[in-house]
Amino acid sequence: MKTPTFYGVGIGPGDPELITLKAARVLEQVDVVLHPQGKHGSFAARILEPLGLTAKLQPISLCMSRQRENDENVYEQTARQIVSRLRDNQSVAWVTQGDPLFYSTFDHLMVAVRRLDPASHIEIIPGVSSLHAASARTGLPLCRLGERVAVVPASYGLDDLPALLERFTTVVLVKVNAVLDRLAEELPRYPHVQAVYVEKAGTTEERIVTDVASLKGQESSYFSLILLRHET
Amino acid sequence: MKTPTFYGVGIGPGDPELITLKAARVLEQVDVVLHPQGKHGSFAARILEPLGLTAKLQPISLCMSRQRENDENVYEQTARQIVSRLRDNQSVAWVTQGDPLFYSTFDHLMVAVRRLDPASHIEIIPGVSSLHAASARTGLPLCRLGERVAVVPASYGLDDLPALLERFTTVVLVKVNAVLDRLAEELPRYPHVQAVYVEKAGTTEERIVTDVASLKGQESSYFSLILLRHET
Repeated sequence: MKTPTFYGVGIGPGDPELITLKAARVLEQVDVVLHPQGKHGSFAARILEPLGLTAKLQPISLCMSRQRENDENVYEQTARQIVSRLRDNQSVAWVTQGDPLFYSTFDHLMVAVRRLDPASHIEIIPGVSSLHAASARTGLPLCRLGERVAVVPASYGLDDLPALLERFTTVVLVKVNAVLDRLAEELPRYPHVQAVYVEKAGTTEERIVTDVASLKGQESSYFSLILLRHET
Repeated sequence: MKTPTFYGVGIGPGDPELITLKAARVLEQVDVVLHPQGKHGSFAARILEPLGLTAKLQPISLCMSRQRENDENVYEQTARQIVSRLRDNQSVAWVTQGDPLFYSTFDHLMVAVRRLDPASHIEIIPGVSSLHAASARTGLPLCRLGERVAVVPASYGLDDLPALLERFTTVVLVKVNAVLDRLAEELPRYPHVQAVYVEKAGTTEERIVTDVASLKGQESSYFSLILLRHET
């Protein structure tokens, strides 16, 4: 019999077909599928819908805000549940949109589970990240041979942007919400940089905007990024 | 009937189960599946084996060397074949290991096909890249909330490494072959940086080495990378 395992499963960027065969098989085989749920519902549960796993889906409510304390408690409680299930000979999956180790919630749980039981068996199933989904949907290469890529959360400011654009062919700004207005103002300074805003790539709510300046004053989604790429 | 389409299909890092449901469906539906073949055979064909597509697989020989001229001719000829098939109402897929727009051959073909026929219908199916596969297999997060990632081909030298490690939590060095010895020597200067060498992540030939210094003097694969991550 297979060792009871805690799986971190990446389920891809949003299109239910961008789940891997392995993720689909593992989710079919485990006893419980935990998925994060925010205040706007669960994006992960919607991606999983066609797989018909409803009976074993269990939502875990997270705030995902800067104030981490509440979520820390949730991770701790969830880790206790996971370790107890593993001891009960059950396998558990935690699903994350995109990839489990790319700006994801899974990492917190992995740390918490290991802390409770260092011997617990953990396996990570990588997924298609928003990085590759956005690149595919816009047709902009993330990198060609010999090129460099930087992935940077824009929420920490744009002061570094000139230096980044000097050293990297592609700069991917994630969590662009907070800086969208300033970015819209600054982009004209870089006439040879192509900029594309991508929200929820590959989903039915996908939004791709090539005139980033037009986004000034608009609300942008948590699941948005901007690809900046030197024309080559 | 569906528009004849040229698909760029990412088939993941090597484990045949890390193909997406979409990639599997598209490869099932198209008329021809072109795959790159180097001097050591075709890694892509081995990933596709379990899908049983043998009858429509067509290898395209590439050198993948720094000297691009020969490959440019192959891309040009292949693009002509693709455009002619599209006009013949056939759909064609070009498969790439990992993701089609992440250090891949697909981009060259996309450009060549568009040049021959700007109206040709092209669709890109993103895949799990070696970036996420390596992170999953080592359990090292590519990035946590607020962290920065740089992806840099090591073949262009290591002079920048100190500056990169100062600005990025994770630095992924790809194509590490040429600099492995120098890197092995320099790593002790960064005692708080965890380094892991990953070759062919997720395949039966996978090799993960945490003592990077031990690799000095060894041959490394084309499909290798090193994750450098600040201990957090």
